[in-house]
Amino acid sequence: MIQRASQLLERYRHLKSKGLRLDLTRGNPSRAQLDLTAEMLSIPFAKDFVAEGAIDCRNYGCIQGLAEARRLFAGLLGAPADQLIIANNSSLALMHDAIVYSLLAGTCDSDRRWSKHPRISFLCPVPGYDRHFRICEDYGIGMIPVQIRDDGPDMDQVEQLVGADASIKAMWCVPKYSNPTGTVYSETVIERLAVMKSAATDFRLFWDNAYGVHHLTDERIEIANMLELSARKGHPNRPFVFASTSKITIAGGGLGLFAASKDNVRWFLERSSRRMIGPDKINQLRHIRFLKNEAGILELMERHRCVIAPKFRKVLEVFDQELSRVEGVRWTRPKGGYFISLDVPRGCARRVVALAKDVGVHLTPAGATHPYGKDPDDRNIRIAPTFPDLPAVAQAAECVAVSVHVAVAERYSSRACK
Amino acid sequence: MIQRASQLLERYRHLKSKGLRLDLTRGNPSRAQLDLTAEMLSIPFAKDFVAEGAIDCRNYGCIQGLAEARRLFAGLLGAPADQLIIANNSSLALMHDAIVYSLLAGTCDSDRRWSKHPRISFLCPVPGYDRHFRICEDYGIGMIPVQIRDDGPDMDQVEQLVGADASIKAMWCVPKYSNPTGTVYSETVIERLAVMKSAATDFRLFWDNAYGVHHLTDERIEIANMLELSARKGHPNRPFVFASTSKITIAGGGLGLFAASKDNVRWFLERSSRRMIGPDKINQLRHIRFLKNEAGILELMERHRCVIAPKFRKVLEVFDQELSRVEGVRWTRPKGGYFISLDVPRGCARRVVALAKDVGVHLTPAGATHPYGKDPDDRNIRIAPTFPDLPAVAQAAECVAVSVHVAVAERYSSRACK
Repeated sequence: MIQRASQLLERYRHLKSKGLRLDLTRGNPSRAQLDLTAEMLSIPFAKDFVAEGAIDCRNYGCIQGLAEARRLFAGLLGAPADQLIIANNSSLALMHDAIVYSLLAGTCDSDRRWSKHPRISFLCPVPGYDRHFRICEDYGIGMIPVQIRDDGPDMDQVEQLVGADASIKAMWCVPKYSNPTGTVYSETVIERLAVMKSAATDFRLFWDNAYGVHHLTDERIEIANMLELSARKGHPNRPFVFASTSKITIAGGGLGLFAASKDNVRWFLERSSRRMIGPDKINQLRHIRFLKNEAGILELMERHRCVIAPKFRKVLEVFDQELSRVEGVRWTRPKGGYFISLDVPRGCARRVVALAKDVGVHLTPAGATHPYGKDPDDRNIRIAPTFPDLPAVAQAAECVAVSVHVAVAERYSSRACK
Repeated sequence: MIQRASQLLERYRHLKSKGLRLDLTRGNPSRAQLDLTAEMLSIPFAKDFVAEGAIDCRNYGCIQGLAEARRLFAGLLGAPADQLIIANNSSLALMHDAIVYSLLAGTCDSDRRWSKHPRISFLCPVPGYDRHFRICEDYGIGMIPVQIRDDGPDMDQVEQLVGADASIKAMWCVPKYSNPTGTVYSETVIERLAVMKSAATDFRLFWDNAYGVHHLTDERIEIANMLELSARKGHPNRPFVFASTSKITIAGGGLGLFAASKDNVRWFLERSSRRMIGPDKINQLRHIRFLKNEAGILELMERHRCVIAPKFRKVLEVFDQELSRVEGVRWTRPKGGYFISLDVPRGCARRVVALAKDVGVHLTPAGATHPYGKDPDDRNIRIAPTFPDLPAVAQAAECVAVSVHVAVAERYSSRACK
């Protein structure tokens, strides 16, 4: 074992000597991906600023977004066009605002504003998305973790909690190619979410379908339509569906997309009419003219896949080669989305992240995938391989793997000493 | 009088028979104004998406906005570039969000979030901007009206209220070419606002400098720099300064602008980092490349003035001709901004708006310029002449004038009958 440890340290020191500066923290698209949309940003407008309904897209108004844009994204969101809202970037802002409006004014089913309750909570499938959790943390909303399984959140636990506790007002869900686990919610799970009884009469699913068309394999996985299902099962107002074009067109200037029941849409528009007079409709025109239709969206996503799928394959190849024999280490093989979720032995995640940082590879802080940034098992690390180029991804994956080895070896030797 | 009344009714009926459909409700720019910025929307991007600091404007991030954009608008906001935030449209959204963040998290000077107080209020100079007041109304923030005088709000009243009542957390101000009165706050008023003692330690001025470069005459009026003054007088965190390019470039796709002390800017960025990952920086690039510099902004504003100043002159000409002898009727002669404020005899404003509507001229509802939409004197009407073309503005102004005459005559005859 001493032999192996010294070899390991040698390798780790060698990597460190390279002075790398690699970033696997955030799910940012790479330059090659952004180039796919270059044309959209240079669409010339002659005098054609007018959209359906004689709307001059340059002026104020049209708070729901252009009808053409709502039709373009209706399929992606699984809702009729009149139940869509097309907003500025980003979907995170829409989620934030939906929470703010519920806190300060109440949903359309609330008997009082959420801030008037002594305590409210959201269910948080874990591992999950740190930005979801931070909104809750910031506004004093309690977070109750629920384990993610292979087919979605642990529904026995969810049903029990939501059915019994009226202070649970909502649940975060990334139902497809989930962040970070790549989990796809099964039809059964989605149906149970739609059907279940909730103690709170104004319970909401924050249905963040961020990766609806973000496939990484030939298999274009489709999930059940939550809006349709919940309406059919008697809870039409339960889901707030969110998506965006941030990872379809351009990350910094995409469109935020919202879909829900008619009552919810009316409510959201009424609330947001206090905030603004209308979205940037010129950017909606650009999207309409560039993407054209659903087929256009899917074609573009194929081009994204060509850029990023090899990066995912490379990370998996390195992990398979380096880590498959390490006990307690496992990782996801996502069929879509932007992340690989890496579990290391209990109590090692922070150390791995620190070791990786020390050789120049920046990872999302360990714990970020859990409420309050605290992973009770200190096990989970989110790997985001889209941004660096392929050789850099390979290099970074090796650094992560070696960091895992070093952390595990340290753990072993410290146990041995005790 | 009967003779005059019958002539009046005849004229009113004649106008009605024309079947007009004119809109003087909102301060929307006209098509001719939007055309001034056409070029900006067709700026081609070859591969030049990169801004200062090697920022790829297409990707996530850069939450404060581009350095180039912050420099471009530093003069307009009267702050060093590092104390500016450049956001998506619109400034209303920034004001809304500043209130939301204060309610749900507290300002950087608050000992608790504003929503934890049993009652908070904003001072509201009247007549004022309905969208300001609606945010307060919506979130249960009390509104205390303060009279607007020729040189700004009644400062004796303001100082007394703000100095005595710690539940007064903020004050709305449109310091230049105010909506709707066109009032320009005098240096004395601005200095008193900067200097005054506030009972609340986290008191804020919501300084909505919406019309900073929106001159209607050759006189380019400048006002005192609130940020500098309040810093010098020991209240650096007092002002939140807002502006936008909505009425400079395009109304539906401009930039929202925010400036404040370093502490306030840090606070606002920290709060909004929960909401979003970065603004649309491509739209910032478009603005930078089109406007170029402060001189570019002022030149463009001159072109706006050429389009809209004649419309204001036309309304004033019609009012001078038609209404100058009507007792209790007066109107503003703004040197900038987007509105003319018309006062009619007490108790007549609603009736004038109804009569105008009946001849096909849509006006902002009477009362809209006051908190809760209630003008206690039922006197004030806001006239927004920018959107229709010149002949339509002339026609609409005549309809308004005749509606005033009819309302006054009705009032007179009803009094005579009593």
